[in-house]
Amino acid sequence: MVTANSVRGGQIRMIDLILGKRQGKSHNRQEIDFLVGGIMDGSIPDYQLSAWLMAVCWQGMTLEETAFLTDAMCNSGSVLDLSELGSVVGDKHSTGGVGDKTTLVFVPLLAAAGIPMAKLSGRGLGHTGGTIDKLEAIPGFQVDLKTKDFIEQVKKIGMAIGGQTAELAPADGKIYALRDVTGTVESIPLIAASVMSKKLAAGANLIILDVKCGKGAFMETEEKAKELAATMASVGRLLKRPVLAVVTDMEQPLGFAVGHTVEVIEAIETLKGNGPDDLNELCMELGALALVEAGKASDKEQAQAILKELISSGKALNAFAKLIEAQGGDSRVLTDYSLMPHAKHQKAYLVPGQAGAPKWLEHIDGRKVAEAAKVMGAGRVKKGDPVDLGVGIILQAKCGDALKAGDAAAIINYDTDSQYEAAAAKLAEAFTFVDKAVAKSKLIKASIA
Amino acid sequence: MVTANSVRGGQIRMIDLILGKRQGKSHNRQEIDFLVGGIMDGSIPDYQLSAWLMAVCWQGMTLEETAFLTDAMCNSGSVLDLSELGSVVGDKHSTGGVGDKTTLVFVPLLAAAGIPMAKLSGRGLGHTGGTIDKLEAIPGFQVDLKTKDFIEQVKKIGMAIGGQTAELAPADGKIYALRDVTGTVESIPLIAASVMSKKLAAGANLIILDVKCGKGAFMETEEKAKELAATMASVGRLLKRPVLAVVTDMEQPLGFAVGHTVEVIEAIETLKGNGPDDLNELCMELGALALVEAGKASDKEQAQAILKELISSGKALNAFAKLIEAQGGDSRVLTDYSLMPHAKHQKAYLVPGQAGAPKWLEHIDGRKVAEAAKVMGAGRVKKGDPVDLGVGIILQAKCGDALKAGDAAAIINYDTDSQYEAAAAKLAEAFTFVDKAVAKSKLIKASIA
Repeated sequence: MVTANSVRGGQIRMIDLILGKRQGKSHNRQEIDFLVGGIMDGSIPDYQLSAWLMAVCWQGMTLEETAFLTDAMCNSGSVLDLSELGSVVGDKHSTGGVGDKTTLVFVPLLAAAGIPMAKLSGRGLGHTGGTIDKLEAIPGFQVDLKTKDFIEQVKKIGMAIGGQTAELAPADGKIYALRDVTGTVESIPLIAASVMSKKLAAGANLIILDVKCGKGAFMETEEKAKELAATMASVGRLLKRPVLAVVTDMEQPLGFAVGHTVEVIEAIETLKGNGPDDLNELCMELGALALVEAGKASDKEQAQAILKELISSGKALNAFAKLIEAQGGDSRVLTDYSLMPHAKHQKAYLVPGQAGAPKWLEHIDGRKVAEAAKVMGAGRVKKGDPVDLGVGIILQAKCGDALKAGDAAAIINYDTDSQYEAAAAKLAEAFTFVDKAVAKSKLIKASIA
Repeated sequence: MVTANSVRGGQIRMIDLILGKRQGKSHNRQEIDFLVGGIMDGSIPDYQLSAWLMAVCWQGMTLEETAFLTDAMCNSGSVLDLSELGSVVGDKHSTGGVGDKTTLVFVPLLAAAGIPMAKLSGRGLGHTGGTIDKLEAIPGFQVDLKTKDFIEQVKKIGMAIGGQTAELAPADGKIYALRDVTGTVESIPLIAASVMSKKLAAGANLIILDVKCGKGAFMETEEKAKELAATMASVGRLLKRPVLAVVTDMEQPLGFAVGHTVEVIEAIETLKGNGPDDLNELCMELGALALVEAGKASDKEQAQAILKELISSGKALNAFAKLIEAQGGDSRVLTDYSLMPHAKHQKAYLVPGQAGAPKWLEHIDGRKVAEAAKVMGAGRVKKGDPVDLGVGIILQAKCGDALKAGDAAAIINYDTDSQYEAAAAKLAEAFTFVDKAVAKSKLIKASIA
C-alpha cells in the first residue's frame, strides 16, 4: 500500500493542482501533503503557490480539504506533546482586536476552575499589542519559557502563558508571507488553516476561539466571521480536537483601556469583579462554553455561576497571582498598580461641539484608537521595536452612551505634549458622535460549541 | 502633466493591482503600463504576477483594459514600421489547427488581389507544424529574412513570409512562460492580448484572424471562440487597427493533408483550383473579408468573384511562384512535386470492422492525426529539433462521409515499418466511425468584420 501510494504521490504535479483548483475541484489528502511538502522543501516555486492561493480565494476549499491542509501545516514543524497534562488542556485564541486583554483574565479564571491552560502567544505587530507585550508591564514577568519549563509550570500550577519559541507550523509562516504580498489573505479556508494549524501544533485539545468581526478585523461582516468560526470548529471536529468559538463585535475596542499597563489594570479589575461589562461578558461566555465542554458544568447557567463564584471569592485573582509569581513577576501589582510603568501625564480628549450640546456615541473605530496609542509608542512599527508600556488611552464612554459636548470622551496617558497632540488627532478620527440616541450594539454575535 | 503622472505612477503598488483585480475592479492605462513595465524590468516578482494572472482568470478584464494591456505588451519591444508599404498591409494569424496550410494559399492569393501581405510566422511546437517549417519542404526556400529585406520584398513583389527574428512583444513571452506553469493560459483577455500584441508589433494594419474552436484548440466551445474573436476585433478597433476574424471548426483537420510536403502540395493544388472544399471555403471567406475591408470589392460576392478569377486565371499560383523565387526557393515545385522531400512508402490505414459493412465517419481527432505525423518525425518534441519533411498523413475522408469497413480512411507516407505502425496506432484513436449516417459539420461558425 505504501509503495502504491508513493508511486501515485510521485505523479502529482503542482500545475495539475492549480488547474484542478481553478476549475473548482477538491484536493485529496495526498495532494495536500504534496503541496505542503513542496512548500517546505522549496520544490514548489512561489509563483505556482501564489497562483494556487488565488485559485483557492476564487473557488474555496471543502471542509475536508481545509482539515487536510490544517493537519499538513501543523505537522510541518514541531508539535507540542501536552499529553502528560491530562485529557483536557485549554488554549484560547483571538483573531485580533483592539483593547483585547481577555487572555489575562481568561487563563487564571479557567485554571481556577480546574482546566489546565497552556497558552502560547505571539508579540503584537501592526495596530494591536500582543498579550506577551502587555504582560511585560508587570515587573519581572518572564515570557520566554522553554517548552519543558512551560509544560512543567502547567503541571505544577495549572497554567502558563509563554511566547512562542519553538517553530510551530512553519509552513504557515511561509504561506502567510506569500499571501501577504499576493492579495490572498482574505480567504476563509486559508485563514482557518492558518489559525488552526498553529493552535493544533501548540498541543492543547480544547481550543477556544474568539473570532472578531467588523471594520479592521480579518472578517468585516458578521456573516463571514460566523462562516470562519464554523469552518474552524468543523476542522477541529474532523481532526478530533474540540473547538469552541464565539463571534464578537469589533465595532469598538473591548473594554475601555488600550495600551499596556492600562490594559493589565483593567484585566486585574475584571478578576476583582469590577471589569467592563463587555470584557466580563466575553470571559463569562468563553469560560462557560469551556466548562461545559470539559464536563465541569452541566450547562451554561451552572458554568457561569461557578465562574462568578471564582471571581467573587478572589480565587481567580489568586490564580493570577500564582501565574505572575511562577513566571518571575511581582504579584504585588495586583494591589499596587504604581509598581507598573506609567506615563507622566493624563489629560482628557473632549467631545467636540458647542459645550453642553447632547451627543451620542455611535461608533469608535478601534484601529484609530490603536493608532492613537501607537503614535505615542505603545505599538510596534517593525519586529523587534521596543514598546512604551506606560502610555495609553482610557475610553470614557462606549457606543450608545449619551454625552455632552465638552465631556471627556477619553483620557490620554502621555509623557510629552507632542504625544498628546498626535494621539488626540487620531482620536478625533476614531469617534463618531450623532445628535440623537443610538442603540448599544451587542458584543457576542454567535457561539459555536 | 508629465510630473503629475509620474508622481501618481510612483504610488502604484502591485499588491493593490492584485487586490483590485481580485475584487473585480478595472485597471487604468497607468496601472497597466506600471504592470508591463515592472514585468520587463523585473521589479514585479513572478509570484505577484502569477497571483494577478489568476485573478484575471477569475474576474476577467474589460475590453478597454485588454486594449491597454495589448498596447503595452506590443510596445515592450521592437515594433515593425511598415508605413512605407502603404495604408493597407495585411497579416494573417491562426490560433493553431491541424493541417492548417491556409497561409500558403492566402498570402499569394491576397497579394495577387493587390493587398500587400507581410506575414511573420513562428515555428511549430507541440502537435502542430508551423508554416515556416512547411515552407522548408520547398528546396532553397529561405525564411530567415532581415527586417529590412523583409520590408523590401513586400515593397517589390507585394508579399513576404518570414520567420520571426526581431523580438516582438517580449512582455508576451515573459507572461506566457509564467501562464504556462501557473494554470492561467485559459483566459480570453490574456489570450487576446497575447495574440494581438504580437500582431500589432509585426506592423500590419489589416489583421485577419482565424480562431479555431473544438477539442485541442485554446477555445473548446464555439461560444468561447466567438467571444475571443470578438474581443480581439474590439481590441483592434480600440487601438485603431482593423481586425477581421472568422471562427472555424477544429473538430477535424483542415483539408486532407497533415505533414510538410503533403501540405505544401495541397496548398499548391488549392491555388490551382483543386483544393479541398473546407480549405477553399476558408480562403474565400477570409479573402473576401479582407478585400471588402481594403476597399478592393464592394461586397463579399464581388470579392469572391475576384478571388475565384485570380485562381482560375493562374494569377494566384503565379504570385506563389514569385514568392518562392524571391525567397530563394525552386518554383519548379509548383509543377513538379517530386522536387520536394518524400517518404519512401505509402500505405493505407483501413476502416476497421467486417469488410464491406457500411460506416460513417463521425469525428476525426485532429490532435491524434497530428500525433500520427509527429511519431513519424514530422513534429518537434523540443525547440530546435529537426523535422522530417517527407512523412505525413493524407486523409481519404472527412466527417460525414460514407465508407465501408476495409476502405482506406487515410494514406500514411512513411519510411520504415515501425513508423507506419506507430502512425496507424495513433490513427486508430483518431477516427470515430458510426453505423448510421451523420451530418457534415460546418467549417465556418462565425465571421466578424
